[in-house]
Amino acid sequence: MTTPPKAAWIAADWGTTNLRIWALDETGGILAHRSSDKGMGRLEKQDYEPALIELVADLLKEDVATPVIVCGMAGSRQGWAEAPYMATPCAPPSIRNATRVEAADPRLDVRILPGIKQLTPPDVMRGEETQIAGFLADNPGYTGTLCLPGTHTKWVALKDGRIERFRTFMTGETFALLFSHSVLRHGLSSDDLDNAAFAAAAEHSFHAPEMLTADLFGVRAAGLVADLAPAQASGRLSGLLIGVELAAVSRDFDLGNTALLGSDKIVGAYRAALTQVGYASRQLDAQTITLKGLTLAYSSYEPEHS
Amino acid sequence: MTTPPKAAWIAADWGTTNLRIWALDETGGILAHRSSDKGMGRLEKQDYEPALIELVADLLKEDVATPVIVCGMAGSRQGWAEAPYMATPCAPPSIRNATRVEAADPRLDVRILPGIKQLTPPDVMRGEETQIAGFLADNPGYTGTLCLPGTHTKWVALKDGRIERFRTFMTGETFALLFSHSVLRHGLSSDDLDNAAFAAAAEHSFHAPEMLTADLFGVRAAGLVADLAPAQASGRLSGLLIGVELAAVSRDFDLGNTALLGSDKIVGAYRAALTQVGYASRQLDAQTITLKGLTLAYSSYEPEHS
Repeated sequence: MTTPPKAAWIAADWGTTNLRIWALDETGGILAHRSSDKGMGRLEKQDYEPALIELVADLLKEDVATPVIVCGMAGSRQGWAEAPYMATPCAPPSIRNATRVEAADPRLDVRILPGIKQLTPPDVMRGEETQIAGFLADNPGYTGTLCLPGTHTKWVALKDGRIERFRTFMTGETFALLFSHSVLRHGLSSDDLDNAAFAAAAEHSFHAPEMLTADLFGVRAAGLVADLAPAQASGRLSGLLIGVELAAVSRDFDLGNTALLGSDKIVGAYRAALTQVGYASRQLDAQTITLKGLTLAYSSYEPEHS
Repeated sequence: MTTPPKAAWIAADWGTTNLRIWALDETGGILAHRSSDKGMGRLEKQDYEPALIELVADLLKEDVATPVIVCGMAGSRQGWAEAPYMATPCAPPSIRNATRVEAADPRLDVRILPGIKQLTPPDVMRGEETQIAGFLADNPGYTGTLCLPGTHTKWVALKDGRIERFRTFMTGETFALLFSHSVLRHGLSSDDLDNAAFAAAAEHSFHAPEMLTADLFGVRAAGLVADLAPAQASGRLSGLLIGVELAAVSRDFDLGNTALLGSDKIVGAYRAALTQVGYASRQLDAQTITLKGLTLAYSSYEPEHS
């Protein structure tokens, strides 16, 4: 049995649902990439350190504290330790803004990066600010729009490399609730989504967003009286919700210069909808960007002087 | 132990969630009004007759079949027996359009009234058409708008006493899903709803319906960074959803002449939102109207000739 080499530091993306870590060597080489389902939603305060140790114990040196740089919901009030929000407009947080967690295990030196809040209109993010930092590392001084699709999709206006303002849309969570729990579930397909139905629905609701809750019931009704197939119904449901979101952001964000950060599947849906209403966009891989943001934070890491 | 007098006929409103019956004498006097939770959502085909018998057995004459006039989801394809839809534009269905159910128990002569479908845009109703018939019994030849708030709120355009067209909004179901299952649930109050927050949110989303999914997340964010109280959050959630619905209907329906049919609580919310955006309306009690519609159907009842 071989043991892996020890990490120079550990990057952690600790969200509501999952904990994802990378163990890195001094040159930024990835020694290990692991994840567990011990997200913030399942943990009490005292559970965080054991959940982390469980995932990284064999990667830790015995004689020195290994830096662990954390972003995400672990820094919320109900998380491991509250990392108070920074407020817009601001540059993405650096490690100087991080909160140090007193770990019981001397092998850990944990720093949690803050989220960002906006007061008008009220909004919050935790985790995405680190992806934005990663994006800006490759695009210094960027001015334009960043979209981070997900359960709670973020749209961010960047100006000269700073976060001017942002807005969160509950599109993903609303889709999931309607898909699994509403009357629509009887007529939907879970493994297939019709692209033409998606695009048509996105364009429709982009131009008539006020019809959303009627159009949602229309998905069910069309299944009953117009033989709408399940794959078409799923496509239409997704398209309707994303189209309304695009109607909103088209009023407040510059869609002429948009980069999307996320996984292939969801970013693909957003790009298709943007194309349908006349906007080009480019795609970047979210995991790569997250690690880049955490690496940027680590680059200014200094051990605590005791 | 006394037994109730026997019914001349039975009116039944059989929805997804509940079965409600009235037992009536020959002059329309109510002998009994009962309900059970054996709605269509819980029943297989073979369960309907026992569920009905359980509720009305002591009201049935032994020597003759008692007419049971049914409206609602019991007539859906997954219900007791399919009562095929009528199509708009049409007058509300009468008993001549009803489907007779072959009951095993000779004491029952069950007739299920059809629902109404609309092909463009696709939409369906089951149960509301009987309320519309009841409303028209008091308002013959009516031209104007009828709103039937509920889990799936119906807006109906009536012209000269006929149903021209209608549209269903998933507002109530969407509210319930967000209230119970979404991230918003952490900041909501279940027993209190702030009326001022409701009215402000309804007016806001009436004018900016495209912001809905962002404004929904804003309810959560305002709880985190702006101390939005739970009763205000609940009011805002309800107001946002109803405001979007009113934005839609204001484009397609005559809101200058609107009657609302439903229970006090939900009709009160709709009336408050309508007032906030500048429309007066009047309220009618849904249960009374339902019985009136079923009574109208019974007035043309004729026993089956065997």
